[in-house]
Amino acid sequence: MSDMYRLHYAPDNASVIIRLALLELDVPFEDVLLDRSKGEQSLPPYLEINPAGLIPALETDQGILFETGAILLWLTERHGALAPSMNSAERTGFLKWLFYVANTFHPNLRIHFYPGKYIAEGHETALRDGCRTNLTQSLKLLNEAAGQGHIWLNGQDPSVVDFYLAACLRWVALYTNGGTPWFSLSDWPNLYELCAKLEKRNSIQKASWIEGYSENPFTDPKPITPPVGTAT
Amino acid sequence: MSDMYRLHYAPDNASVIIRLALLELDVPFEDVLLDRSKGEQSLPPYLEINPAGLIPALETDQGILFETGAILLWLTERHGALAPSMNSAERTGFLKWLFYVANTFHPNLRIHFYPGKYIAEGHETALRDGCRTNLTQSLKLLNEAAGQGHIWLNGQDPSVVDFYLAACLRWVALYTNGGTPWFSLSDWPNLYELCAKLEKRNSIQKASWIEGYSENPFTDPKPITPPVGTAT
Repeated sequence: MSDMYRLHYAPDNASVIIRLALLELDVPFEDVLLDRSKGEQSLPPYLEINPAGLIPALETDQGILFETGAILLWLTERHGALAPSMNSAERTGFLKWLFYVANTFHPNLRIHFYPGKYIAEGHETALRDGCRTNLTQSLKLLNEAAGQGHIWLNGQDPSVVDFYLAACLRWVALYTNGGTPWFSLSDWPNLYELCAKLEKRNSIQKASWIEGYSENPFTDPKPITPPVGTAT
Repeated sequence: MSDMYRLHYAPDNASVIIRLALLELDVPFEDVLLDRSKGEQSLPPYLEINPAGLIPALETDQGILFETGAILLWLTERHGALAPSMNSAERTGFLKWLFYVANTFHPNLRIHFYPGKYIAEGHETALRDGCRTNLTQSLKLLNEAAGQGHIWLNGQDPSVVDFYLAACLRWVALYTNGGTPWFSLSDWPNLYELCAKLEKRNSIQKASWIEGYSENPFTDPKPITPPVGTAT
């Protein structure tokens, strides 16, 4: 393979988080579209790359990475940026909230999108109801943490946790609100501030076309209009 | 606080994974029992430590850690052991499977234990059924990965992923089998080997009394008989 990173992506999938990190790091990369309308993420060529069939994956000169949190963490190790340095007092908070987003906030969102991957038909509405309760609890904790002056969460410069969280917040607004909107980002002022700050960055502008984003994709998310590919 | 780590634990909870890592690292630590029979993990004193109310948490001289995966990773950074070094080709695999265990295998187990935290009464059996399907898919992927000769998964020396996975496998056998056993570790030979190797280590022997473990707690798990505390 080439020395260049290769990002396997679909528009507005979790791959956007990796794209933003790569753009922030200002490292060159190629991207490879997974055509979700054909279910390419579940077909053998991609399963060789990520046997779990999930997007994103990143090919590197050190092997293939998958899992959003793992890719983010590895990029921070490799490039020495977008995270507090090891052996700093901010490192503990960074790691614990990165894992929290990866194993609590993001999975509850995923269950809400795809309840059929967890439960039989007829029970899906009940599972989504439970997810929204859990998401609300996460929003409370994350909003509190984002108001505590950490350098890696809603700080002056972004960390990979900020990008991960902002993308999840976009998806909460866009994909879980349904007929009776239950979520408004403005109810969580520290998270709103985090999103508003990120939107001003060049990385977001650079990612917008390929991801199909409109203006202010975190504070004012709209359905995507990408040049190629589909979100689901 | 003292320089010594303080592990907040309950027997046979995810805290055992951190205990095993600390014993392997041969670093001194104190432990603090959370009395689950009184729900102490959900009461204000502990919520100051981990606002998510989950066990374990680890107090360190660099602040409080929670999230099993985050604590494990931080310990490997701090002590330079139980993980492949950064900038090594094994690092990518280590990170992606650590996150996979933390955000897919472990959460599906947790949903199976506590379906009521995700769905209303009347739907819990259906959710558990879905979790067992997902757990089987994870077992397949993890068993394959554990047969690929990685140094950090079923290798000669253990990594934190091995301990995390072995504990989860114990819980699958002990807590999800129910009336119609569906899981036998021996059906997954690489995972069986991983568990059998770990059981021979001194760390397991040293942890057994306080965790209430009987002999061979990973390949032949039995209900716990700890001196203090309860698992649920």
